[in-house]
Amino acid sequence: MTAATLSLHPDRLLPADRHVRDIARTLYAEVKDLPIISPHGHTDPSWWARNENFDNATNLLLVPDHYLFRMLYSQGIPLGDLGIPDASGSPVADPRSAWRTFAENYYLFRGTPSRIWLDWVFAEVFGLDILLQRQSADHYFDTINDQLKRDDFRPRALFERFNIEAIATTESPLDSLSSHKTIRESGWGGKVITAYRPDPVVDPEFEGFVANLRKLSDLTGEDCFSWSGYLTAHRKRRTFFKEMGATSTDHGHPTAKTADLSPQDAEALFDRVKTGKASSDDAENFRAQMLTEMAGMSLEDGLVMQIHPGSFRNHNQSLFDRFGRDKGADVPVRSEYVEALRPLLGKYGNERDLTAILFTLDESVYSRELAPLAGHYPALKLGPAWWFHDSPEGMRRFRRQMTETAGFYNTVGFNDDTRAFLSIPARHDLARRIDCGFLAELVAEHRLQDWEAAEVARDLAYNLAKSAYKL
Amino acid sequence: MTAATLSLHPDRLLPADRHVRDIARTLYAEVKDLPIISPHGHTDPSWWARNENFDNATNLLLVPDHYLFRMLYSQGIPLGDLGIPDASGSPVADPRSAWRTFAENYYLFRGTPSRIWLDWVFAEVFGLDILLQRQSADHYFDTINDQLKRDDFRPRALFERFNIEAIATTESPLDSLSSHKTIRESGWGGKVITAYRPDPVVDPEFEGFVANLRKLSDLTGEDCFSWSGYLTAHRKRRTFFKEMGATSTDHGHPTAKTADLSPQDAEALFDRVKTGKASSDDAENFRAQMLTEMAGMSLEDGLVMQIHPGSFRNHNQSLFDRFGRDKGADVPVRSEYVEALRPLLGKYGNERDLTAILFTLDESVYSRELAPLAGHYPALKLGPAWWFHDSPEGMRRFRRQMTETAGFYNTVGFNDDTRAFLSIPARHDLARRIDCGFLAELVAEHRLQDWEAAEVARDLAYNLAKSAYKL
Amino acid sequence: MTAATLSLHPDRLLPADRHVRDIARTLYAEVKDLPIISPHGHTDPSWWARNENFDNATNLLLVPDHYLFRMLYSQGIPLGDLGIPDASGSPVADPRSAWRTFAENYYLFRGTPSRIWLDWVFAEVFGLDILLQRQSADHYFDTINDQLKRDDFRPRALFERFNIEAIATTESPLDSLSSHKTIRESGWGGKVITAYRPDPVVDPEFEGFVANLRKLSDLTGEDCFSWSGYLTAHRKRRTFFKEMGATSTDHGHPTAKTADLSPQDAEALFDRVKTGKASSDDAENFRAQMLTEMAGMSLEDGLVMQIHPGSFRNHNQSLFDRFGRDKGADVPVRSEYVEALRPLLGKYGNERDLTAILFTLDESVYSRELAPLAGHYPALKLGPAWWFHDSPEGMRRFRRQMTETAGFYNTVGFNDDTRAFLSIPARHDLARRIDCGFLAELVAEHRLQDWEAAEVARDLAYNLAKSAYKL
Repeated sequence: MTAATLSLHPDRLLPADRHVRDIARTLYAEVKDLPIISPHGHTDPSWWARNENFDNATNLLLVPDHYLFRMLYSQGIPLGDLGIPDASGSPVADPRSAWRTFAENYYLFRGTPSRIWLDWVFAEVFGLDILLQRQSADHYFDTINDQLKRDDFRPRALFERFNIEAIATTESPLDSLSSHKTIRESGWGGKVITAYRPDPVVDPEFEGFVANLRKLSDLTGEDCFSWSGYLTAHRKRRTFFKEMGATSTDHGHPTAKTADLSPQDAEALFDRVKTGKASSDDAENFRAQMLTEMAGMSLEDGLVMQIHPGSFRNHNQSLFDRFGRDKGADVPVRSEYVEALRPLLGKYGNERDLTAILFTLDESVYSRELAPLAGHYPALKLGPAWWFHDSPEGMRRFRRQMTETAGFYNTVGFNDDTRAFLSIPARHDLARRIDCGFLAELVAEHRLQDWEAAEVARDLAYNLAKSAYKL
Repeated sequence: MTAATLSLHPDRLLPADRHVRDIARTLYAEVKDLPIISPHGHTDPSWWARNENFDNATNLLLVPDHYLFRMLYSQGIPLGDLGIPDASGSPVADPRSAWRTFAENYYLFRGTPSRIWLDWVFAEVFGLDILLQRQSADHYFDTINDQLKRDDFRPRALFERFNIEAIATTESPLDSLSSHKTIRESGWGGKVITAYRPDPVVDPEFEGFVANLRKLSDLTGEDCFSWSGYLTAHRKRRTFFKEMGATSTDHGHPTAKTADLSPQDAEALFDRVKTGKASSDDAENFRAQMLTEMAGMSLEDGLVMQIHPGSFRNHNQSLFDRFGRDKGADVPVRSEYVEALRPLLGKYGNERDLTAILFTLDESVYSRELAPLAGHYPALKLGPAWWFHDSPEGMRRFRRQMTETAGFYNTVGFNDDTRAFLSIPARHDLARRIDCGFLAELVAEHRLQDWEAAEVARDLAYNLAKSAYKL
Repeated sequence: MTAATLSLHPDRLLPADRHVRDIARTLYAEVKDLPIISPHGHTDPSWWARNENFDNATNLLLVPDHYLFRMLYSQGIPLGDLGIPDASGSPVADPRSAWRTFAENYYLFRGTPSRIWLDWVFAEVFGLDILLQRQSADHYFDTINDQLKRDDFRPRALFERFNIEAIATTESPLDSLSSHKTIRESGWGGKVITAYRPDPVVDPEFEGFVANLRKLSDLTGEDCFSWSGYLTAHRKRRTFFKEMGATSTDHGHPTAKTADLSPQDAEALFDRVKTGKASSDDAENFRAQMLTEMAGMSLEDGLVMQIHPGSFRNHNQSLFDRFGRDKGADVPVRSEYVEALRPLLGKYGNERDLTAILFTLDESVYSRELAPLAGHYPALKLGPAWWFHDSPEGMRRFRRQMTETAGFYNTVGFNDDTRAFLSIPARHDLARRIDCGFLAELVAEHRLQDWEAAEVARDLAYNLAKSAYKL
């Protein structure tokens, strides 16, 4: 049995209605070739520092992508069969065998964005023209691996081919940023910058928190077991990150809670949590206070603040014990922003020189909380549909539920938030198509004029991310 | 650079699909000229009492409209630049300059209902045929102001031109209703009635609550510091409001909580809150008990009850301190109705002679709580999509999430809930177009016959509001 | 005045867009004649055991259907007028008079799924070609009753005419399953099986819980007032149900809470609840623990587990006092799954041989909680849009919000969950049409190839239910 064909239709992801599609096609033509601004994500800067060839299809595309193996795992496929090692060192499938398992089960991704992103990677990056199925598994594996050995498939070449104008990675304050240093000193022109993600030294429940404070002391020469030394250490690392190109910070807290304690109370709280024996209330309050402290520092140094709350990390304890973090077992929880953000907003929400970009995994807050908040406070902006909602239907819900209250100009365009480098153009392309489709609907219903929609399309695809993130 | 054109397309807001649009157009033709029933809103009765010319474009259209300046403020524009005064008496922009700022930033409203309402006002009321932009700011300001000086732009003339059959304003029990008296005694035929909004004397956390009780005593000759005198005072004022045309009451509580205390417990609670030193629990319980008391009085006097819960008022404390209430800083919070309404419904929910109309700012309760409740209890009806959700997409979500469980006949048509008088026809027109579009989808999918859809369209546009509100 | 016509359009419920509809029509042609798998519902097995003629239109179609009389009641129609008896034995309308009341008010169901199901029953089962209205009431009543007397309208004949391959009823562990026995021994080939619904002996707040434990002891010969005897009794009854064809259990709890207590703590908890004087906390914890116990037993005996949480039962106390359960006064409440299911999932979530099918009445958890959970845990699957959401728009929301994270293959096709036997084909047909419409949208937007959509359509209509429920 031969494999089915694979081809990317030029009108894919545009609205089905012929009239609306015509409008969308015109809008899309305006934005499809704009450079990619990727202001938030999790790619590995060492790729561009070392510029070594990628390994093979499985290790590049399957093993690091928890979107893929969580779905395969949900259907009863052991992670080891996909080439993912566990703590005990149990044997895992070899790359070809793992790839075959993936190919046989690729139909599970029907209707998901992973399918759309991957088909783009297969067709556009690797020139494949048949669908990934059991019968095409080896052809895929060999074809991809052959190309990965070529110079024009090295990280920097792909970066250029993808027309990336700027990309941000995310690092902990404890990171030396040596890869970023290497890139800057290499003479290569690609703009790869970092972002300041202080969770390991801000979240008392982070693994190794106390040890991390010790490392932060060593790195900065500050006594990070005193409140003032700890804050100064943050300032120093933020400055260093800024020197390495950072324009933003990122905060991945369980909730959006913020606090505005007196300096005395904040110091007393810090003295409790620095012992590593904080109660969970103290931990939550400390994270809350630190969001407000970080906002204050952002006002000083101009770094844009990103808040990513609402994920229950490592929900599956036994899987975590065997395989560790980021194995597809993070699950969103109900989130609340109106009470939670009030302390921070009471202190800094009216500042025109602060930008705090909010994300959520709880779509029920789009129209109820986030759009009204961002449609009022000068300091607030809305990040794009995030993670589980970074998808055609998810983006449509985002625009339909946000726009009428927050408008387009309190949003910040698209970011891909991914570690799957090869899929980045596919993700931006998907977002551009969906946004053009949404705008086309507004034009078709005479809610917006065509030239206005074209202006907004360019803003959503390029200008808003560039200006919100100061890139 | 010349300004872009402005024209209202006859098919605006109807579904894009050509076949569905044809059906929608036919339905819309049935309802577009029906008189406006505006059973709930916040217009100022003194306009029609005094019938004086409106001032100028800025003071009529911008300064009182918190939908507009909250969006402009969110993008960093100081309220003073929009002509909005603060408590300290800081200088504010003059009307022309404020209008120019508005015009330059009018693009921020792309995709919002404000844009749709305003374009209608500009084109239909003032005959403008270019878009509001920086380059048309002065033309707009002068054109509008010139017309506002004319007799046919006075409040009564506009009321008649707008084909308003009845409009309700909203007043506190402490209001003398002198404007309503003036209107009734003027001989002018316009039907302007009041509605009983007792929050200032029902909510122990309302500013001046104790003083308000004193005023209520003075007004009614009752001792409003005794539980029975307080209840009698309500009855007297309700009767007076009814004499001035009122057919409804309105209750703007933080939550939908109701209570059904014994008379002794209710009196004891009242004795605590009347001191002005109620705990927040007591305050919440008192509001809860008063909703049930008001339902009981509605059963006596026939006033229709409206419940508008779920807004966190004045979220931005420093803005509130400088500029006061209603400055665009009210934010919805998550709401709960199933437990909250049970005490009231246990007592009065089965009464066929009571009508309690529920509103919400939390769309997640549409299909989960409100439609099932209204689809069962005879006393309950569903108010239209409210405030932030009074918009094309908001209304579509309302119909899609409510209709399958509650049907059309447990809803009460549209109300505009606005103080922006000139936009009232635009708001009703928008609602009619969206409802006709929704009905057209049902017809196109053969879920409803065309003649039935036409009947429902007329009911939604006119009959249901008229009968639910007894107008 | 003659009644309007009634005819079922062949394209009903398919998307309005002509291009998408063409694709949907092709997909629908693939599935429309597939046999019905009805793996979960509430039909009465005695119908097929006795195979007696149904009574009359009112008693067959109106009196047992709480979807219908809740809507009529919400508009002020007394239940007695619909032929529904109360506890006091007040006189009720005779069947013809009740039918007339229903007919006059049939317009209330415009836009609801009941209307779609009933029109199908009227047209397809009874050959009616005019709409149910006041003027056609008697014609309907007589036509339906005449046919109900015929042999080809007996339960078994209809079962065969409806092309039902398998149907599951739901019984309590206290049920003798005598009807199922009769059916099996009758030689009739229809596959009617039971499902194990232990709420009456698992929920300490169920009416008669202690008496039910006594009955369970009698039935099984176990001492159901000892923890081990109680668990053994469950095992015995599950085995008996399995012998009578059961492939599943069903759990209708107020919340999704689960627990994983030590055997000692579980026993101590049981000792408290078996007295019939459990606190509501104990009751909730016992239900929670029992879900985990049931999961463990499912792993032993292979019965598929269904969890149906989130309904506030009998919200209207005075109606309950007069008319009893299931009178349309059950209302969904906000639900939470991520924390609630963690104990059960921590113990059994990674088991590939367990299937737990989750349902919800709270659509806000679709994309936030259920899809991410089912997209990870091997033991979890997603039941279809349930109860108030078993409707065209409800199903569309389900697919749009679930598919991108959970895919199609973590869902289990459709089940009708109904006691309205005659509407079962209409319900499955509606689901097939909506699913084909959704798939057609994916094809039209080039998110799925046409042959893949056809494969998925067959899976959703038939294969997934069959395999998930082991039928």
